[in-house]
Amino acid sequence: MKTSEREFKVIGTRPVRHDGIDKVTGRALYGADHSLPGMLHGRVLRSPHAHARILSIDTSRAQAMPGVHAVITGDDLPSVPDRTEALGEGTTNANDLSNNLLAKGKVLYDGHALAAVAATSAHLAEEALDKIEVQYEVLPPVMDVRAAVAEGAPLLHETLRTAGVPESKPSNIAKVIEFARGDLDEGFAAASVIVEREFTTAMVHQGYIEPHNALAKVDADGQITLWCSTQGSFDIRSLCAKVLQIPLSRLKVIPAEIGGGFGGKTTVYLEPLAIRMSQISGRPVHMVMSRNEVLRATGPTSGSVIRLKMGANAHGKIVAADALLDYEAGAFPGSPVLMGAVVIFAPYALENFRIVGRDIVVNRPRTAAYRAPGGTNAAFASETLLDELAEKLAIDPIEIRRRNATCEGVQAPWGPRMQKVGYEELLDAAQSHPHYSAELPPPNGPLVYGRGFAGGGWGNAGLQSSAILSVNNDGTATLVTGSPDIGGSRTSCAMIAAEELGLEAADVRPSVADTDTIGYTDVTGGSRVTMATGLAVFEAAQDVKRQLRERAARMWECPEEGIVFEDGDAIRPNGERLSLAAIAGKAGRTGGPVIGRATVNANRANGPSFAGFLVDVEVDTETGKVGILRGTVFQDAGRAIHPAYVEGQMQGGSVQGIGWGLGEEYIYSNEGKLENASLLDYRIPTALDVPLIEAVIIECPNPAHPLGIRGVGEASIVPPPAAIANAVAAATGKRLPVLPLSPPRVHAALQTGD
Amino acid sequence: MKTSEREFKVIGTRPVRHDGIDKVTGRALYGADHSLPGMLHGRVLRSPHAHARILSIDTSRAQAMPGVHAVITGDDLPSVPDRTEALGEGTTNANDLSNNLLAKGKVLYDGHALAAVAATSAHLAEEALDKIEVQYEVLPPVMDVRAAVAEGAPLLHETLRTAGVPESKPSNIAKVIEFARGDLDEGFAAASVIVEREFTTAMVHQGYIEPHNALAKVDADGQITLWCSTQGSFDIRSLCAKVLQIPLSRLKVIPAEIGGGFGGKTTVYLEPLAIRMSQISGRPVHMVMSRNEVLRATGPTSGSVIRLKMGANAHGKIVAADALLDYEAGAFPGSPVLMGAVVIFAPYALENFRIVGRDIVVNRPRTAAYRAPGGTNAAFASETLLDELAEKLAIDPIEIRRRNATCEGVQAPWGPRMQKVGYEELLDAAQSHPHYSAELPPPNGPLVYGRGFAGGGWGNAGLQSSAILSVNNDGTATLVTGSPDIGGSRTSCAMIAAEELGLEAADVRPSVADTDTIGYTDVTGGSRVTMATGLAVFEAAQDVKRQLRERAARMWECPEEGIVFEDGDAIRPNGERLSLAAIAGKAGRTGGPVIGRATVNANRANGPSFAGFLVDVEVDTETGKVGILRGTVFQDAGRAIHPAYVEGQMQGGSVQGIGWGLGEEYIYSNEGKLENASLLDYRIPTALDVPLIEAVIIECPNPAHPLGIRGVGEASIVPPPAAIANAVAAATGKRLPVLPLSPPRVHAALQTGD
Repeated sequence: MKTSEREFKVIGTRPVRHDGIDKVTGRALYGADHSLPGMLHGRVLRSPHAHARILSIDTSRAQAMPGVHAVITGDDLPSVPDRTEALGEGTTNANDLSNNLLAKGKVLYDGHALAAVAATSAHLAEEALDKIEVQYEVLPPVMDVRAAVAEGAPLLHETLRTAGVPESKPSNIAKVIEFARGDLDEGFAAASVIVEREFTTAMVHQGYIEPHNALAKVDADGQITLWCSTQGSFDIRSLCAKVLQIPLSRLKVIPAEIGGGFGGKTTVYLEPLAIRMSQISGRPVHMVMSRNEVLRATGPTSGSVIRLKMGANAHGKIVAADALLDYEAGAFPGSPVLMGAVVIFAPYALENFRIVGRDIVVNRPRTAAYRAPGGTNAAFASETLLDELAEKLAIDPIEIRRRNATCEGVQAPWGPRMQKVGYEELLDAAQSHPHYSAELPPPNGPLVYGRGFAGGGWGNAGLQSSAILSVNNDGTATLVTGSPDIGGSRTSCAMIAAEELGLEAADVRPSVADTDTIGYTDVTGGSRVTMATGLAVFEAAQDVKRQLRERAARMWECPEEGIVFEDGDAIRPNGERLSLAAIAGKAGRTGGPVIGRATVNANRANGPSFAGFLVDVEVDTETGKVGILRGTVFQDAGRAIHPAYVEGQMQGGSVQGIGWGLGEEYIYSNEGKLENASLLDYRIPTALDVPLIEAVIIECPNPAHPLGIRGVGEASIVPPPAAIANAVAAATGKRLPVLPLSPPRVHAALQTGD
Repeated sequence: MKTSEREFKVIGTRPVRHDGIDKVTGRALYGADHSLPGMLHGRVLRSPHAHARILSIDTSRAQAMPGVHAVITGDDLPSVPDRTEALGEGTTNANDLSNNLLAKGKVLYDGHALAAVAATSAHLAEEALDKIEVQYEVLPPVMDVRAAVAEGAPLLHETLRTAGVPESKPSNIAKVIEFARGDLDEGFAAASVIVEREFTTAMVHQGYIEPHNALAKVDADGQITLWCSTQGSFDIRSLCAKVLQIPLSRLKVIPAEIGGGFGGKTTVYLEPLAIRMSQISGRPVHMVMSRNEVLRATGPTSGSVIRLKMGANAHGKIVAADALLDYEAGAFPGSPVLMGAVVIFAPYALENFRIVGRDIVVNRPRTAAYRAPGGTNAAFASETLLDELAEKLAIDPIEIRRRNATCEGVQAPWGPRMQKVGYEELLDAAQSHPHYSAELPPPNGPLVYGRGFAGGGWGNAGLQSSAILSVNNDGTATLVTGSPDIGGSRTSCAMIAAEELGLEAADVRPSVADTDTIGYTDVTGGSRVTMATGLAVFEAAQDVKRQLRERAARMWECPEEGIVFEDGDAIRPNGERLSLAAIAGKAGRTGGPVIGRATVNANRANGPSFAGFLVDVEVDTETGKVGILRGTVFQDAGRAIHPAYVEGQMQGGSVQGIGWGLGEEYIYSNEGKLENASLLDYRIPTALDVPLIEAVIIECPNPAHPLGIRGVGEASIVPPPAAIANAVAAATGKRLPVLPLSPPRVHAALQTGD
């Protein structure tokens, strides 16, 4: 049966989420809630300089304080390979990771960790930090990509050479990548209109509410148990094992409930320090960051400078596109510029293009993943420039997107041919939505109004997952996976199991297991969990159903052949039925408990998701303040397992995109000191800043997945900044190629601008 | 390949135990070590009377105390069926269980719980207990089975009638069971010698060091998480669900590390109270018993009176045996008298016998399982009387056992025919052991010396188990079961997995999961875990090997047929090899992680184990003190997976048997008050009381099990009291049919005796 024809009973409904009550009543146990007898409290000493050589660190006075049980510096971490390899989420250079944990030789950003202390109380640990004496030789910092690539720029890493460029000399450019096809000159020659701009976007943080935390317990034989808030317990295990040079099997990672991650909780900061100090002290060590530490020293996503030139013919068909993406990596290589290069033209069928991306180190924190990493910056450039093309050609901005829209069979800029995707359906839905034709308020004194639209896509990830589905003897079931739940995957996975077994969603009790308890499972990221872990759950349910048919045959004392399992019953060819509960109740006598299991590499089942954002803005031309009047997000979910969660993802991504578009940015002083390291000064949108975003789900089933699922967590953050900029242009007649569109920037642009 | 011919690499070795370091360094987390934010502390009000009607309970003053968040009595527990049914370990009457948790109508023993309080501190909770006012009508107590069956005895339960006796009137006899075969009169007529005695054994406690504990967290939607120290998390789940009338799927039980159980941690005392008070207060509730509470109010095993008559012919062949076993049930029906009836003649092939067992309620705590429940009392009677027969017939005491020994094909007194067992081999080993022929010291003043031997068997249990075995990508593995580890089963199960996969024991990391995380698994009891959960592990490993062959075929791009997995490698017909680590390292590319799983009903694979105990005693005829000079325990382990653990079980069971034989007993006042409710007065043997017990493992593989395993946890506790009594008889010439053989009893007997 084709999934599109199948009727679902549980999938597509909106049951109460399994973890909901726990969370709203404050009972859920987050990382910082764990404690152990005899536990020490760890704190980190951080650099006040953006760029400096460490001449000496004297920890002797801290070591001597009563109640201080461990003091560590970079010298207390083992040497690790200076080689980028498959490790954790994607590829990682373990030496960089180690140097980011505790600086060796140089500090590379304001907040860079230098030393850590574990003491019997947090206050004592902080006092001990004050007693650590560090001598620095302060160096000039490199704060953005323009400065980093300038001739004679100070070098962060004296030995770093540019990957992808043969015989390069030491540089701040860590890597150059390129996608190209067709003939650019020919393309631009055929264009009726050409537009070109340089875009600048700011470094922004994921803004999860829960700070990073870790509790490590190292036993006398070296066995390690680590509690932490993470998106990927197996990734944390492999990263800790690598930087501490211990075997994987020594370390058990227990993922706590997680108070937001958005990509930022896929790597390690405190975890190896807590382990190391527990190894030294012989006592459990607990560490929790302050907000200041989270902003200064965990991984935000890259600010960028993007130079983009696009040409279109009179019909609005894009005939050439040339992009240079310069992304801030932070202090160590690893920006998401590759994904920016994938996303920049992902929604469109192009024949002549070149996309060059550069990964550039600067004296800012090492970047980490953030929801559709690299995509929002890129789409800000392409989707505003496309809007400008539409304007110049007098074509409806959604119509110009439809004329270029990618679809089944199109070769994507990065190589593969697309399977069925829902971008055209999404554009139709946006164009026919009442929001698109609603009237805008007329100008009112200094207030002007505009509407903008932008699209964007995200490829999503497949990767590996495991699932165990056990049937209780009362006919309910328990489901174990290794995917920390950051966006409702416990419920969506339980619903998949319930659908297959003919149960109610509440009858399947999901849990997220530690790394000793479940098979290898990749990170909760890439919007992969409902798709990939869901696939493992789907297959585990098939395994259960196979066993239930076998047990039913044993109960009926008949051959298994011809028995089917449907709607929660095993059915004999003669029509007799045995319910799952009846079979489960006798499982002890027909061979023991019934447990299904499956493991998958879900790359084969992955499919991309596209989103669009439609927004009305009010611009105060006197102050430059941009307000959001109305927002509607459209997204192809493939199959929405729990539509309320899908809507939540779409709304959440949109709001984060609005924050990125309007207010969020890392503000550094000339000396490289982060000047807004608090949530008072780093402005993420609050409920007062945004209206309720309407979410419109489009369902074009993913043909590669047995349930048609596409990951839905990320695509919705890609369009909003571009949509807002397009709306501001519509309101003011000015194109502002800069993020965030904060009042001072907008105000200044309105005075000058083009 | 027959298991007896197979060569093992891991099985039979003595690797460091996986949980060892954690335990010896004090890091292991036991039930009482858990704490949660906002946790309340619960305490229990207990009856000072052995038998009384509850006229009223006034909790109002306690309720009114600031800081008291919940006060409950029997009225706060729901009504449950007054029916004995399959529930928890074996069968349970939920109504009795509920009344034992919190008395309704009557209190039935000193220490019987009446009410419980949860408050912000333990001291406050204790103060609140003092403010609860209870009015009693004190009733005469019934303290032993003789008094309980006497005409006109006070009745504990006015409506209790004798199961197995049609039209019985209300009585303290809860049940009568009987096994019989052949013709007793004919048998005794053929006897050359007949001996008959009445034996009395005392109520004894398992003496686990860790008291009972429970931490319950009930969420706003009624979902319950329970941490406790238990031998069977699924049993605790079903018992709590039954007495609280909640669905199984509401309750997740997380088994803590356990500080001894020996059968006593298979039922509930605090758990439902903690849950109920958490339901009421909305806060987590933590409860831990004092030692006084453990001794007064948890389940010891039955004291008993056993009347036994045996006859043998001149060759020492037992020709008739007639037994009446009266077992104390404690306050509610449920003594292990049935198992006593099974064990009493288990080691022997008998043709004419009658075994009648009676389950009798008395005003003592409700009994619970204790290592080979009911067996030690029974064997004390049969093995001392057989010794007396040997003495009278001048046959060597081991020789008379060999002449009667059970073996393959013999029909057991309780019905089935025996498969191959190792009792004859065990007797041979004992007889040829240097200990049996070593010289005893000559009498020395008041000190006299004697040697005794006794045998005994235990049938063991099969039941259901589940196992999940996951392969890590570095070639190590993690193993998850649902069997709390009370005797080394984590290590033995890990060794089975390691053996099958060609790994080292340390490369398999075992864990014990909660009830949401692993499939249904029956209690850790009946010596079943290494046999039954081990069988699930064995089968899960076969599942892993099947997948590894499939993955190897994919890597070689060849058909799977002909590929074998041996010694940790997949081997192609052409001799090419791929190690487990090599296959695991590529698992992501050949279909995802490898997880094996199996569930079993292991009744089919179970086999009994027999033990023998050889002991030398020194009797001080002036004081009556009996000392143990030397002890050797012999046991058929089938296959000793980790011989050091098997020896530990044999030694532990022997020492508990010595305690039972020499010092342990519940001493009640005439009013039914327990007078020795502390470990100072209730004398379990310490290291100073016993020599190192030598353990001799016999291995007669269990033909029903693929690895030949027999459960080894229990049989060793059966023989010691009988062996000691035989040794005392050899030293003093007096037969003392009473336990314990404590100095006052022995002293008195030496003055009178027969």
